[in-house]
Amino acid sequence: MEDDITVTFEPEGKTVIASSHTLLELAQCANIGLRGECGGKGGCGKCKIKIVALNGVLNEPMKSERVHLTDDQIVEGYRLGCQTRLLSGRCTVYVPPESRTGKRLISGVGLDEDVPLEPLVRKFHLSLVPPTFDDTRPDRKRLEDALNKPVYVPLSILATLPTTLRTAGWDVTAALWNSRVIAVEPGDTTKEVFGAAVDIGSSKVICHLVSLATGETVASANAENPQIMYGEDVVSRITYASKRPEHLQKMQDLIISTVNRLLDAVCQKSGIPSEQVYELVFVGNSVMHHLFLGISPKHIGVAPFVPVTGSLESFPAKELGVRMNPEGMVTAVPLIEGYIGSDAVANLLITRIYQSEKVSLTIDIGTNSEILLGNNERIFACSAPSGPSFEGAHISSGIKAVTGAIESVTIEGDTLTYTTIDDAKPKGICGSGVIDLVAELFLADVITKTGKFRDLNHPRIIEDGVPKFVIAWNKETATDGDITITEKDINEFLLAKGSLNTGWTILSRHYGISPSDIDSIYLAGSFGTHIDIENAITLSLIPDIDRKQIFFAGETAVGGAKMVLKSVSERKQLPQILRSIVYIELSVEPTFNTVYIKSIPLSPK
Amino acid sequence: MEDDITVTFEPEGKTVIASSHTLLELAQCANIGLRGECGGKGGCGKCKIKIVALNGVLNEPMKSERVHLTDDQIVEGYRLGCQTRLLSGRCTVYVPPESRTGKRLISGVGLDEDVPLEPLVRKFHLSLVPPTFDDTRPDRKRLEDALNKPVYVPLSILATLPTTLRTAGWDVTAALWNSRVIAVEPGDTTKEVFGAAVDIGSSKVICHLVSLATGETVASANAENPQIMYGEDVVSRITYASKRPEHLQKMQDLIISTVNRLLDAVCQKSGIPSEQVYELVFVGNSVMHHLFLGISPKHIGVAPFVPVTGSLESFPAKELGVRMNPEGMVTAVPLIEGYIGSDAVANLLITRIYQSEKVSLTIDIGTNSEILLGNNERIFACSAPSGPSFEGAHISSGIKAVTGAIESVTIEGDTLTYTTIDDAKPKGICGSGVIDLVAELFLADVITKTGKFRDLNHPRIIEDGVPKFVIAWNKETATDGDITITEKDINEFLLAKGSLNTGWTILSRHYGISPSDIDSIYLAGSFGTHIDIENAITLSLIPDIDRKQIFFAGETAVGGAKMVLKSVSERKQLPQILRSIVYIELSVEPTFNTVYIKSIPLSPK
Repeated sequence: MEDDITVTFEPEGKTVIASSHTLLELAQCANIGLRGECGGKGGCGKCKIKIVALNGVLNEPMKSERVHLTDDQIVEGYRLGCQTRLLSGRCTVYVPPESRTGKRLISGVGLDEDVPLEPLVRKFHLSLVPPTFDDTRPDRKRLEDALNKPVYVPLSILATLPTTLRTAGWDVTAALWNSRVIAVEPGDTTKEVFGAAVDIGSSKVICHLVSLATGETVASANAENPQIMYGEDVVSRITYASKRPEHLQKMQDLIISTVNRLLDAVCQKSGIPSEQVYELVFVGNSVMHHLFLGISPKHIGVAPFVPVTGSLESFPAKELGVRMNPEGMVTAVPLIEGYIGSDAVANLLITRIYQSEKVSLTIDIGTNSEILLGNNERIFACSAPSGPSFEGAHISSGIKAVTGAIESVTIEGDTLTYTTIDDAKPKGICGSGVIDLVAELFLADVITKTGKFRDLNHPRIIEDGVPKFVIAWNKETATDGDITITEKDINEFLLAKGSLNTGWTILSRHYGISPSDIDSIYLAGSFGTHIDIENAITLSLIPDIDRKQIFFAGETAVGGAKMVLKSVSERKQLPQILRSIVYIELSVEPTFNTVYIKSIPLSPK
Repeated sequence: MEDDITVTFEPEGKTVIASSHTLLELAQCANIGLRGECGGKGGCGKCKIKIVALNGVLNEPMKSERVHLTDDQIVEGYRLGCQTRLLSGRCTVYVPPESRTGKRLISGVGLDEDVPLEPLVRKFHLSLVPPTFDDTRPDRKRLEDALNKPVYVPLSILATLPTTLRTAGWDVTAALWNSRVIAVEPGDTTKEVFGAAVDIGSSKVICHLVSLATGETVASANAENPQIMYGEDVVSRITYASKRPEHLQKMQDLIISTVNRLLDAVCQKSGIPSEQVYELVFVGNSVMHHLFLGISPKHIGVAPFVPVTGSLESFPAKELGVRMNPEGMVTAVPLIEGYIGSDAVANLLITRIYQSEKVSLTIDIGTNSEILLGNNERIFACSAPSGPSFEGAHISSGIKAVTGAIESVTIEGDTLTYTTIDDAKPKGICGSGVIDLVAELFLADVITKTGKFRDLNHPRIIEDGVPKFVIAWNKETATDGDITITEKDINEFLLAKGSLNTGWTILSRHYGISPSDIDSIYLAGSFGTHIDIENAITLSLIPDIDRKQIFFAGETAVGGAKMVLKSVSERKQLPQILRSIVYIELSVEPTFNTVYIKSIPLSPK
């Protein structure tokens, strides 16, 4: 039997006493947001930490660590958290800023999700007549007669009905979800009726609290998706969750507890008791959808990538353990396919491309970018496996769009300028910064169309094992190192943009139009709102159309969830919208390889 | 702080170590079926026990004990379990046979509940086509398409659907309850489909397991209702359950665990896994109905005695913790009124008096006797508060219809003969025995029409504080005492029969007919099947009509539950039957007192 070891994480000073695990696992135990995009396999190198004190024995640095760390760094005590184990004794570990998951920047821009208010949750103030020997209708019948329609009354409501009615002096408010009674409350509470719209992203979770009496959003909150501990990308999470039933349970618990914390937060901010939240509508990709509902995502990960359901599903909150009115309902916006989630449906609701005769394109850039092209007749959909580079992963200095991320870059002659999120000292470069950088490097002739450095003697190119282009010198940064980009990084990015480009090119062919004939483009998601349109077009990340017809759709996911929450009509038209969608599985498209190979290199406009 | 005391119950030899409680409470802890019809208030005297060894201190005998025990008995160590506390030390307690709840005799007689088999639970064997890239319908849609109708799929089924379908090679059987999918099982299990019909009586609980593929009853089991620990009559149980939320929970737990044990028993007997029980239909009086569902019966006990629901209610088994298929449904047959339960509805279903033009009477004799009178136009219903004397309570030598109970009595001249249940040595007299006895005593002129002994020198009348008529001398009995009846006992019985008589007399008046014009009489319940018709008519317990038109309906309760279980048509006609019922609350009837006073004395035929 092994002895317990003791690890302290700095600067928090949190200590974990446990049997031997990797430092990444122990950081998770201590609730330290240590990055681990590759799922702890030593692949991404993001979980860099520094051993600052040691009174015990560590394992030797692994091969994968030598890939991501220089010899000097190893001497200084740097290790990868996922590869390092304290075998005995105690140690103190410093987690540097760039290795932290941190709080993500959430875009505030977006299309208006305003719809006429007609929620499925409705409240009715009722003054009932007390029973007499001449009128011995049972309590339930009395309620039903007052509501003037047949209703379903769940057991827990039935069980408390006699007491509630009599304590309230027969003056009550009934909350209905469709024809299901989800609450009976004393007095008139018709104004106190709320719902939550939740976007469960792989990286971040956003929760909006909406008054279903006024339609107003009364509070919002967001948090990291803690499942990120088990891999940044959905494939890692499918793998982890499919391994054992406990893993699936753990993944569900993590996301449910995060949503619960967000619900607590929005309720607290607005002074609303959680019992007054009667419906929660959520959107997410198929894997998030399945994990939230406790359904194994295993089969979404295996061809032909079929999800368990593509319908609007609603379940009582108590069955999922969501902290709201226990008889309230949790509604999952339908998925389109295994790799196109309900966030894409939300996107359609917001952009309304299904209403117009003109052909529009919506792109939600992410690890899997969802691309929809069509009009009121039909919509072609695909999921482009663009990889995590747009989110800062698989790029050596890449970080997510957090404080200190370089988010835009300009090169004029020999002068490079950049801006960072929150104007903080740079910690790395995020996706929008990479787009700018690659476009500017190409336009400034620093790189070739295949992304190779033309001149290794460029004043910003240093030799550090491989040639690296310096974006920010170490004296400028918050990381004590240069922020750089390598040819490998650029190649990674070109593959990603090629994948995206392939997606909309193939969809256009299916539709029988040229990409330049597309009427409008909607860029959805927080990433979309931060990119420079000209640079995106330079890189052929999006089709080259009239700039006035390119829109930032913003956080369409939570917006679409709000539309479903607020409007029965929006809900009702979902099946019809879904029927108009034709899913194109890129991996089995005959033209895929040809188009993809052509789409990788850069090309002059 | 008190020290723990130790009590051993004999002949079981079960020992309880606890802080000081009454011996009745400790017997309950030890699962010793000690009678306590009055709810442990010292009123019924049924919990007589004998202290056979004592090494500690008992409380002094209470006033109520001196009422039920002779001085000699007290000297011998007899006490009432509900009034006796061991204050310190240890003692051994003997529980005599007549103080035990024991196993009740359940009637096997009854009307046929056969109906065409058309259960709400149906199974469908499905061979699904596996998904391909050309057919990426989600699993749920694939299932729904195969079933060829829209269905509701609960979360737990949805969560396991992908694995079930793939493990089973897409060859599955779906169980539906209405349009709700309650199971998806590998292979063809269409023949393995069962339901349970349960009668939750105040005293006994009966469970029948029915094949919903053949309609056959494959096993049955019955048990005492352990709530009897908290009072024999429903009023005591309402009082107890209304006192504190924990009490309600306890009452629900007791009955649910009893039903679970019966389900286990019937499943074990027939070798059927409990997951194959997909619906449970139960009947019971309003209090049993509420307690089983965890609903406070408080308001049924208060005028105007309104139950929470009068509709057919179905809830998922998992919400109630019933041990069957967790997604299977538990269905409560509707109540008529606060004091007329769903057992009366079952009674109507079995006797079908709602179908005939002729006017029929059904009587279910119990503590509250349910009386229904009517035809296919309308049915008058009332609940007669006949008290527990028909069940052997409130009669000094009265016991329930258990082994050793005197169940019939004949008096010819000076000769009295009796029979006992199972031909065992007599332990007491049960309801049917009391009916015979009183009728025979009246016909033999031993008692007057008001129930007084005519001649205290009768060879069978002894003086023991009060005059007592000896039914069985102590040498014949299993109790070491005479089995007797007093004038007080006879009076108790006359009040009970008066109440019953008042019920059907008042209903007849409402209907506008004379009781002798009633076409048929159905005697329901186990008690009804054991009584002597002639004697019952002699006592005016039932109207005097053509004997050929008097039927023993038997266990209508469980039979009616089976009809609902087996037939959607029976279920569907319930609302219409219920609408034809006019409830008469006897306590507010203007003629009640006059009729009641007239109905108490005996009268020659």
